[in-house]
Amino acid sequence: MSGDYRRVDEGALRDYTAAVLRGAGMTADGAAIAASVLVASDARGIESHGVARLSQYVRLIDSGALDPAAGPVVERESATTALVDANNGMGHVAGDYAMRLAIAKARDHDIGVVTVHNSNHYGIAGYYAMLALEHDLIGVSLTNSSPLVAPTGGRERMVGTNPLAVAAPTGDDRPFVLDMATSTVPIGRLEVYARKGLPLQPGWAIDKEGEETLDPEAGAGGALLPLGGVLATGGYKGYGLGVMVDLLTGVLAGGKYGPLIYGLWDATNPSDLGQFFLALNPAAFGPLKAFHARARDLLALLKEGERAPGVDEILVAGEKERRAHEDARAHGVRLYHSVVTALDELGARFGLDHLLRRDAD
Amino acid sequence: MSGDYRRVDEGALRDYTAAVLRGAGMTADGAAIAASVLVASDARGIESHGVARLSQYVRLIDSGALDPAAGPVVERESATTALVDANNGMGHVAGDYAMRLAIAKARDHDIGVVTVHNSNHYGIAGYYAMLALEHDLIGVSLTNSSPLVAPTGGRERMVGTNPLAVAAPTGDDRPFVLDMATSTVPIGRLEVYARKGLPLQPGWAIDKEGEETLDPEAGAGGALLPLGGVLATGGYKGYGLGVMVDLLTGVLAGGKYGPLIYGLWDATNPSDLGQFFLALNPAAFGPLKAFHARARDLLALLKEGERAPGVDEILVAGEKERRAHEDARAHGVRLYHSVVTALDELGARFGLDHLLRRDAD
Repeated sequence: MSGDYRRVDEGALRDYTAAVLRGAGMTADGAAIAASVLVASDARGIESHGVARLSQYVRLIDSGALDPAAGPVVERESATTALVDANNGMGHVAGDYAMRLAIAKARDHDIGVVTVHNSNHYGIAGYYAMLALEHDLIGVSLTNSSPLVAPTGGRERMVGTNPLAVAAPTGDDRPFVLDMATSTVPIGRLEVYARKGLPLQPGWAIDKEGEETLDPEAGAGGALLPLGGVLATGGYKGYGLGVMVDLLTGVLAGGKYGPLIYGLWDATNPSDLGQFFLALNPAAFGPLKAFHARARDLLALLKEGERAPGVDEILVAGEKERRAHEDARAHGVRLYHSVVTALDELGARFGLDHLLRRDAD
Repeated sequence: MSGDYRRVDEGALRDYTAAVLRGAGMTADGAAIAASVLVASDARGIESHGVARLSQYVRLIDSGALDPAAGPVVERESATTALVDANNGMGHVAGDYAMRLAIAKARDHDIGVVTVHNSNHYGIAGYYAMLALEHDLIGVSLTNSSPLVAPTGGRERMVGTNPLAVAAPTGDDRPFVLDMATSTVPIGRLEVYARKGLPLQPGWAIDKEGEETLDPEAGAGGALLPLGGVLATGGYKGYGLGVMVDLLTGVLAGGKYGPLIYGLWDATNPSDLGQFFLALNPAAFGPLKAFHARARDLLALLKEGERAPGVDEILVAGEKERRAHEDARAHGVRLYHSVVTALDELGARFGLDHLLRRDAD
């Protein structure tokens, strides 16, 4: 046990999180889904999208900006596509529903694409892409988000960190899972660096005037740079990827997009985020086992390459998170003490026992 | 007319290029397609993938590494998918065929995905994605390529610059066209900087030992960095995107991938590159005109944002290339004198008049 964090049993944390969400007005089914996504995020080591966000979701519910009891409905549908209205419910519930619908279509027709509008923050994009893996399908998940990134040449926050996730099965327990924001770093990174007084890295942020800055306060008050940083280091590519995500989510699904999306965790208005889910059957292109074998071979070749000085191991996308999840399953999910305290306070409001009394250690 | 380059009529350049390719053994139809892709690249200002490459294609044909007369055939097919064998023919011919097949499937079933194996270098990825635009479809085109990029933490060339292109219609003549390598810069950039003795930018390259370098010679002798540069500036994301492209092309289609692909323009062996083409019907998710209007609105909002110091205009993906193409249509395609000379020498071998005698000025 570390000084900063403690370990909490994954199942107990899921139950507790679901109970909080039921207390806040979600249905039992909806709360179970949202809890599953949030806890998976912590278990995979992505604390920025995990249960620490619970109080923010509850605040959106309290303010009436998000309808906790709303469920998604199919608004338009063809054999291979669907448009889903999330009805301003939790993004996790709509995301889970829409990805499973895309999977069902891919099982019948080799491909399915489902878009969602009128949605909210859905947690980690990778969770939904990974749902395809248990069906031996390739999964894609995209969402737009509150504007934080400046276009190349601009100085205003115009594009979200708009993540993209792609998961591909490998026939073993080590799939390829790319889950990345299209900004260089998340906004939280700048806030942490500002709090600690640490200088930023190049390519992370610009100040209010639009100049690249290593000053954490100036960066946190300015805008994020897209992946690639400034123009000379390829930032226009990350900017293009961010806009691509907006086009395939808010623009395609008929929700908000770009600078029209409200500020992060704005508690007064519906977010109307857009999401995109795709499932693709690799067996449509040849024998599945051969696809698995080639995928495993590619990932093994990458790992076996010569390493740069001071590097112990070359990783492939999803590997770090998979190991974190294995560790969390064996020893409990790592939660900062401050997060446990906040969860306990939130739970007390809904008459729940302290999380401390149920955990693993 | 500049000192470095001259202007050549686009149609005349296409005819000349097609004549060279027929001379090298391509069919009339195949040569017309390949010439169209190559000249479109020059016209859009992407000289690195244009007619300057013609002698390299001819060298591959001369060596027997590429079969100029081969045409693509469908090997597997479902309503929404197909696997195409390019039969080791020109990548442009297979790409054009496969993208049109994906488009036909999307017109019938809202989505089509076609993969290609046993293929070769297909020029600019954006050409194929843009074929979807005239059908008011969203187009995606991916290809793998010769290994030039080091994985994050590695020091060997293991992954291609593996481009991805996405085109979305906007109902006017200004579509969104993202066409980007997943490395920060192309290998040719390092070679040009080495020739001119200019220092590299951060995030471009590592030396043979795996350390980031600004020395152009050391970089050209080392490996490209993925988009994002080193680990701290998000390079693992560009690395992940490059591997994603390999998984959806060579791995999915059953071709070569990653470090198994031969060196750039290797003239002795078939390349067996893989490609991926997707077409998606935005009208499946709502009225087409509303999609167009939202897409135009997003792009306009980005352009209207406050600009950083010294920036005249915020661009969106594809805008620079569209303007170059308009200029090329009006005034001729810009070709460096050295490229014209090389084309004339190549044409002379096949009994063609000098390009100079046919051009626009």
